[in-house]
Amino acid sequence: MVQFANRMNEMKGSEIRELLKLTAKPDIISFAGGLPAPEMFPVEEMMAAAKAVMEENGRQAMQYSTTEGYPRLREQIAERMLAKNNIKTDPDHILITSGSQQGLDYSARVFLNEGDVVLMESPSYLGAINAFKCCQPKFVEVPTDEGGMIMEELDKLLATTERVKMIYVIPDFQNPTGRTWSLERRLKFMEIINKYEVPVIEDNPYGELRFEGEYLPALKSLDTKGLVVFLGTFSKILAPGYRLGWVCADTEILGKYNFMQQAASLQASTISQMETAKWIDMFDLDGHVNKIREVYGRRRTVMVETMERELPDCCKFTRPDGGLFTWIELPEYMDAKELQLKCLEKKVAFVPGASFFPNGGHTNTMRLNYSCMPEEKIVQGITALGQAIKENLR
Amino acid sequence: MVQFANRMNEMKGSEIRELLKLTAKPDIISFAGGLPAPEMFPVEEMMAAAKAVMEENGRQAMQYSTTEGYPRLREQIAERMLAKNNIKTDPDHILITSGSQQGLDYSARVFLNEGDVVLMESPSYLGAINAFKCCQPKFVEVPTDEGGMIMEELDKLLATTERVKMIYVIPDFQNPTGRTWSLERRLKFMEIINKYEVPVIEDNPYGELRFEGEYLPALKSLDTKGLVVFLGTFSKILAPGYRLGWVCADTEILGKYNFMQQAASLQASTISQMETAKWIDMFDLDGHVNKIREVYGRRRTVMVETMERELPDCCKFTRPDGGLFTWIELPEYMDAKELQLKCLEKKVAFVPGASFFPNGGHTNTMRLNYSCMPEEKIVQGITALGQAIKENLR
Repeated sequence: MVQFANRMNEMKGSEIRELLKLTAKPDIISFAGGLPAPEMFPVEEMMAAAKAVMEENGRQAMQYSTTEGYPRLREQIAERMLAKNNIKTDPDHILITSGSQQGLDYSARVFLNEGDVVLMESPSYLGAINAFKCCQPKFVEVPTDEGGMIMEELDKLLATTERVKMIYVIPDFQNPTGRTWSLERRLKFMEIINKYEVPVIEDNPYGELRFEGEYLPALKSLDTKGLVVFLGTFSKILAPGYRLGWVCADTEILGKYNFMQQAASLQASTISQMETAKWIDMFDLDGHVNKIREVYGRRRTVMVETMERELPDCCKFTRPDGGLFTWIELPEYMDAKELQLKCLEKKVAFVPGASFFPNGGHTNTMRLNYSCMPEEKIVQGITALGQAIKENLR
Repeated sequence: MVQFANRMNEMKGSEIRELLKLTAKPDIISFAGGLPAPEMFPVEEMMAAAKAVMEENGRQAMQYSTTEGYPRLREQIAERMLAKNNIKTDPDHILITSGSQQGLDYSARVFLNEGDVVLMESPSYLGAINAFKCCQPKFVEVPTDEGGMIMEELDKLLATTERVKMIYVIPDFQNPTGRTWSLERRLKFMEIINKYEVPVIEDNPYGELRFEGEYLPALKSLDTKGLVVFLGTFSKILAPGYRLGWVCADTEILGKYNFMQQAASLQASTISQMETAKWIDMFDLDGHVNKIREVYGRRRTVMVETMERELPDCCKFTRPDGGLFTWIELPEYMDAKELQLKCLEKKVAFVPGASFFPNGGHTNTMRLNYSCMPEEKIVQGITALGQAIKENLR
């Protein structure tokens, strides 16, 4: 009989992807996904960019390209990382991937043997947990509070845990909690990392989507020892359908990611890369991101205000300054999976939070997305959610 | 200090990809790559398809899609597999990947633990060896002759080798040799496979590019026990720049590939999939493949005829009925890597064959690609190659 590799015992379908099928019906108010708002996609502009690419360089766009990625796009990314994240880098330190999910997969394969330890925020991004599982590591969760990872706890864990080979973090508008680390925490984090010299995966899909407050420096911009691997993506600032992300890392580390890419998929789509680069040259990415920020910022405000009004006092939730998500902690006795079923009856969907904890538990938590529902649906959906919670209070 | 995972010790950059950088200069006659001829790409038609997609469904094309792939494209693939390979399947048994290189990567991860054995033809595709190495298997080479894998040798190896978890084969116009298995060998292969019940990866990028002779049934079409995983791709019949391949397998196995895709990259590019599906609906894929076949067939003929005229008798080479490659065996004392340097002085490039043997050796072999050089360059390049060989005869 056919035997599968041991790693397949741990690989399961993402609950979210299953849930998304369920919530694709048009009458459902879905806070479940993490989709960008399609009405914001610059369809006309991308069509113009596609036309220009095909007219000027159609044959090149349809051919194989280099592992590293399309040179012009790597230049644009390096420039943008300097402008937005104060990261001094250059195109040679950028590898373009098929979405930053691929960067997560490569990260695990570059750094993790079976049984090695990966440290991550508790909770953390489900897609990263899923990608890392393929290498069968041990997950150790670093406690967090309202301000993100608690640095004293990180220091303690690094001092007492063997075989820590990688630390995975989302310092800006974290998925799932929406929390952001202060400058003070970032500096403390780098101090600790420099002491233990463990590689860090800084996942930054939402950093540009800040609605208020000051931009804070990326960890990579504070990295003096070449320990931080920065993952970026066009999925949230342009569109996910092109599947374009990137890895920025120092030479030796990026060389390993390059080998992984040669083995795993050769390269990201040439045509996606050339169309995106052309669009950035022809149009106004900064202006586009500003528009997205405005819309998402309003939706965030409406969601938070409605939660303040409609949720009972025993619920805690985050008030994110940017990104796509907010996070609710229900009373400890309330099970978010049971609540989910009751909400689906009311045509409202969300994701129970337990999946975001690699080692389980926390059944009283849930993640809400506000980026892809119009404001009136947000009011309606949160009101229904509040009702469902109240009906289940003890 | 930063430590990398053990698997990275075995991962190296592909020699071919390094060589391709060297041979990208316009004055080099390159038989080194495996590139399709860019002058055959239907640029105008793809532009029309792209325009139609963006006008009709631009927002959907730019959004996330399902792991499995765009439904219309999966339908078209299932129909084509029936028409071209006599494989009775349906869209539910198709998973669309980012090129079939990604299918190779998933195959290794689905089936191979460290130290497990993968059987493959000797020689076999370098990109597959590279992908599989990530799982640190043991490679066992099955001897071949002019007709491909020798089935008696396969049977013997399966009877005497422990931990064989996967067999990787390219029965049609193999990369690197250009050899094709006869119907008799295919039937014998399936008989052996059914006895040992080992999963088979049938890699079929070139099957449709037959210049002469009868089409032979794919192994998957002869598969009664659900053991064969078929990998297909649009790279050679349309264009590689979209990065679209597919996996066709039975339900349980395909489910594992689906989990891998969720972890590794979520999905293939939505926009690539929708544009390709639209192009197939709007234009004539069969007619397009016929045009490619004609051009490549003529180039193959010119290369073979020139080799017959210009290579000394001590050289053996294949006369492929399709595909992109021919394979030369030099006299045993001649080193193809040394010859390569001498040929590069004459502005002619090829790939030494040793890289296609997972366990090394065979330094007197080389692979030649004929799909992307015009006929006069083929004559010129092979004449120069013949001269270089003659200059190095003992």
